[in-house]
Amino acid sequence: MSTPRSADYDAIADRILAQADRLASCSEGPRDITRTFLTPAMADAHGLLSQWMRDAGMTVRCDVIGNLVGTLPADASCAAGQTPRRLLLGSHIDTVRQAGRYDGVLGVLVAIAAAAQIARTARRVSVDVIAFCEEEGVRYRAPFLGSRAIAGSFDLALLSRADDGGVTMAEAIRSFGGDPDRIDDCSYRGETLIGYVEVHIEQGPILELASEPVGLVTSIAGQRRASIRFAGAAGHAGTVPMAVRRDALVAAAEFVLATEELARETTGMVATVGTIEVAPGASNVIPGEARCSLDLRHQHDEIRDRGFAGLRETAERIAGERSLGVTWTDTDRADAVPMDAELTAMIDAAAGGGLPRLASGAGHDAMVMASLCPTSMLFVRCAGGISHNPAEAVLAGDVARALEVVVSMLHRVEEEASIG
Amino acid sequence: MSTPRSADYDAIADRILAQADRLASCSEGPRDITRTFLTPAMADAHGLLSQWMRDAGMTVRCDVIGNLVGTLPADASCAAGQTPRRLLLGSHIDTVRQAGRYDGVLGVLVAIAAAAQIARTARRVSVDVIAFCEEEGVRYRAPFLGSRAIAGSFDLALLSRADDGGVTMAEAIRSFGGDPDRIDDCSYRGETLIGYVEVHIEQGPILELASEPVGLVTSIAGQRRASIRFAGAAGHAGTVPMAVRRDALVAAAEFVLATEELARETTGMVATVGTIEVAPGASNVIPGEARCSLDLRHQHDEIRDRGFAGLRETAERIAGERSLGVTWTDTDRADAVPMDAELTAMIDAAAGGGLPRLASGAGHDAMVMASLCPTSMLFVRCAGGISHNPAEAVLAGDVARALEVVVSMLHRVEEEASIG
Repeated sequence: MSTPRSADYDAIADRILAQADRLASCSEGPRDITRTFLTPAMADAHGLLSQWMRDAGMTVRCDVIGNLVGTLPADASCAAGQTPRRLLLGSHIDTVRQAGRYDGVLGVLVAIAAAAQIARTARRVSVDVIAFCEEEGVRYRAPFLGSRAIAGSFDLALLSRADDGGVTMAEAIRSFGGDPDRIDDCSYRGETLIGYVEVHIEQGPILELASEPVGLVTSIAGQRRASIRFAGAAGHAGTVPMAVRRDALVAAAEFVLATEELARETTGMVATVGTIEVAPGASNVIPGEARCSLDLRHQHDEIRDRGFAGLRETAERIAGERSLGVTWTDTDRADAVPMDAELTAMIDAAAGGGLPRLASGAGHDAMVMASLCPTSMLFVRCAGGISHNPAEAVLAGDVARALEVVVSMLHRVEEEASIG
Repeated sequence: MSTPRSADYDAIADRILAQADRLASCSEGPRDITRTFLTPAMADAHGLLSQWMRDAGMTVRCDVIGNLVGTLPADASCAAGQTPRRLLLGSHIDTVRQAGRYDGVLGVLVAIAAAAQIARTARRVSVDVIAFCEEEGVRYRAPFLGSRAIAGSFDLALLSRADDGGVTMAEAIRSFGGDPDRIDDCSYRGETLIGYVEVHIEQGPILELASEPVGLVTSIAGQRRASIRFAGAAGHAGTVPMAVRRDALVAAAEFVLATEELARETTGMVATVGTIEVAPGASNVIPGEARCSLDLRHQHDEIRDRGFAGLRETAERIAGERSLGVTWTDTDRADAVPMDAELTAMIDAAAGGGLPRLASGAGHDAMVMASLCPTSMLFVRCAGGISHNPAEAVLAGDVARALEVVVSMLHRVEEEASIG
């Protein structure tokens, strides 16, 4: 049985929602929330979060790739004679374009608030709250940049990749005050880590359908992404007869529909074409080129891989039938990642037991962190399962419950450290 | 019978092709030809054309919307006691994005070269060569701006329309040195006009298939354009089950394929979706919005209108089936326009008779000019029927033949004026 929730948590949850509102104003545009990797909007968010971390009793640093880290160190007296152990909390603060205000941000704010609850007690365990700088993969079309640097699995080849404005990642890191030559310094490898725990909105409808405020994640579905380019022939929209056209957009449209059809026919699969661009791109010119993205996910890696390979064949068949060229580029791949059963059970027990379990259809920094240390996630119910959308919403009571679970876990970690 | 072609015309044709090469460098980008309404690239083109017009013996002015006009005035002595009459030649010098080097430009250069051939002879008829500033409709999504100003049919409401950079048409005209408050000054209404004759590449395969260098146009197919917006719901690509998605891009893809299917099934119809954009536009976000264009053409207005209305119903059906919203905006409409039979017969006779006749699938300034005065067009064979494409190509011999036809016509006009 969980203990009755303190009224304080409701007040703190209200403050967390107000903080999320303030972070929403840290955006690349005035009318929506768009905050991508190392932009001025992210620097604004760092300003607010640094202050809130300090208010919670933490010391604050920004690592060389741009993750903001607040630390609540173990007391020297408590840890005397022992190797101090460290627990990591956090989530990401970058967003998709035209985002909601809770995806990522909520987990960071709950972590800060939870840390504040233990800031004035004696501690054998250090707690780091990490606000990851990049999870969505918007600016450089590569996700998890922040957590990969922390986990020691960052691909240095990405540093030379340019964004749409021609700025390389290395230049972006330098402009933000970081150092692309020392990405390894971000890594926590070699530290004695208890684990990483991430609070995140569910981004799906399962908790809402079950009338549950929070739930523990069993595993994170794998995903694969590709960029597909169909190359035909541009031509005059009024004079090239239909029979001799090589219209790249029509081919891409066939591919979009084939993608939907496959996912609808395959239980548990989701597949999305989220971007499409054509060139030359005028209403009276036949598109000579069309580029689109593919994002395909499933809980089972082999089903996902079979679907992905099938869609590649489909793209090639469509191009062949229309005498077009097609270029298929794999852009990202992440296999399904189970969460740590022992850590997850400990959180459940600390919270009183009986928390519902669910799988995650979305990717998270926790996928990357699981390669570094025992990792677990706590999902918070969100309205309509909607995310990546300005309409994202959570209930203050659900946020209070998530906070209570995390604080209970922090106390349990401290208890176990004092026994161990 | 036409007289054997003078070797001079071949030399002049070579010069015309070299001039087209030079104009190709007047572009908004260094790697392709893109020269839209009133850009610095168009100012560069004006610089070259003004010099070539002066070299041909013409006086040069830029009217208040940005058409460049070279005039070869009638001799005061020849015209004494008569109302001087005026013949108009020309074509446009704006381009689509990533254009070829002859669409529009060729007609202006042939007109200048033809005028040069009669510059030193006594003239009863004034000849104006007009380089229209806007025909393609790229910058303001409204075509024929230059010829509509000349014909006195310019829609002043367009002046407040903004381009993608937020610059209104009125501002663009002022920046170019024009005057949006005096567009009426461009009009030739009230003048005694013999007619308007436009040389243009065919942009289709008919002359090439018939092994004919040039041909006279019988009529220009009508066209209708629309902008279509599908509105669904953005959402996370990993967590929203396929069954509850409201993906705007998938709806647009269905529409693209339905458009192709209709045109393939309807003899003589061409239909094109040349632009498509989605929002938010990230690989891991379900598109909540998709906008695309439609361009539909047919020689018979009633078939075209029936197809256009059918596609609108199709868009609404697709949106209904997917619980999306759809907004359909008619953006342009031009009915089929027959060329002037008498003027066309005169050109044919002047050229020796027997020129092939063909219809135009593309729109031209001649469609607009036909409301002002008798209008005719001479098409020049182009390689593969390819246009709106960097691969546009013409044969120097075909250009020489077009020049010869126009010069013959100028002599015939002068002869008829001296009789009349």
